[in-house]
Amino acid sequence: MSDLTIWTLDWVPEGPRGFVRDLRLRWACEEAGLPYAVRTIAFEDRATNHLDRQPFGQVPYLDDGGVKMFESGAGLLHLAGKSDTLMPRDPEGEAEAVQWTIAALNSIEMVSVPWWFMEVTGAKDNGLTDWLRGRLDHMERVLSEREWLAAGRFTVADLLMADVLRVEKVRAFGDRPVTEAYVARVTDRPAFRKAQADQIACFEAADAKRP
Amino acid sequence: MSDLTIWTLDWVPEGPRGFVRDLRLRWACEEAGLPYAVRTIAFEDRATNHLDRQPFGQVPYLDDGGVKMFESGAGLLHLAGKSDTLMPRDPEGEAEAVQWTIAALNSIEMVSVPWWFMEVTGAKDNGLTDWLRGRLDHMERVLSEREWLAAGRFTVADLLMADVLRVEKVRAFGDRPVTEAYVARVTDRPAFRKAQADQIACFEAADAKRP
Repeated sequence: MSDLTIWTLDWVPEGPRGFVRDLRLRWACEEAGLPYAVRTIAFEDRATNHLDRQPFGQVPYLDDGGVKMFESGAGLLHLAGKSDTLMPRDPEGEAEAVQWTIAALNSIEMVSVPWWFMEVTGAKDNGLTDWLRGRLDHMERVLSEREWLAAGRFTVADLLMADVLRVEKVRAFGDRPVTEAYVARVTDRPAFRKAQADQIACFEAADAKRP
Repeated sequence: MSDLTIWTLDWVPEGPRGFVRDLRLRWACEEAGLPYAVRTIAFEDRATNHLDRQPFGQVPYLDDGGVKMFESGAGLLHLAGKSDTLMPRDPEGEAEAVQWTIAALNSIEMVSVPWWFMEVTGAKDNGLTDWLRGRLDHMERVLSEREWLAAGRFTVADLLMADVLRVEKVRAFGDRPVTEAYVARVTDRPAFRKAQADQIACFEAADAKRP
């Protein structure tokens, strides 16, 4: 039996299904063969009903026995500590995997998520476009030189980077065939497909209970 | 003698002095009592002269013997692995410090840096303003309940969060006295003041050598 519990919302609209970030933690557990439970908090009261566990009102957060964490990136590093599949154990490989995990969060997502936000909220002139183009072009070059980001094999860094890059608007922004092939390759892994299907199934099942 | 080398630019204009992110690694080394060297690459050719070491053309990057890393956040976690001053060793304390380190990068800086970028590039209507206000208000509440982010004492999470929050435009955006007191308290630490003075002195000394 597992003490790992991933907390997420009990329902979301169709748009974000398959993208809510509990998927990152589900995916990591599936890759690592770590049993886990999923529990939920109410979508309706999400602005205030879990600030004691996630001070920005976001999901997911993770329980591992007495250890409680929020931030999907932190949860991934925590799970990676339990699994050689996710994290190399040699110092060079570990450094490389941590570096690319942080790069996904702070060099790509720091630009791509605000850029995406500006796009979907209808900004007339998205001032982040050139910056995003530069970052994605750099990634295209990096990925043209290697199959995986760290240690010559799949690691938690690929899980996170592929999740960041697979956002539809980001994929559609420019023609980057190497990046597209990378995203397709990583998200074709059985662990991703199971995690995504499970998340979508949970939200669909919740439709029937909606008022 | 130390094998730790922090790489940064050999010169920057006055504006970013005291803020270039090699400061995060200098500061961490000062807190931890880890000896380190600083080496530089040329400002003029920075777009292309170190892509083999930092694929986005940024600084800093870190050498630790055979381990090479970019991303200041990753470098901080690596240095934290060497120092109980930076990182608690009990599982709960470590999880809390990692979680807040990632929160600084991916919940605060992911909004504050693009918001700042839009401001300084003269965006007429900064579409990230409400989002940033929400995140900073959440932080004000968090900091009103505790002196330090993790484990009841200074950790690498405070180092990074204070560095993210001390940006002048971010501090000036709204009246958040608890956050301001936190930033003042953390940046009053001798290790920060030494790291910042050392960085500024290096860039000033380079002025004389400019063409």
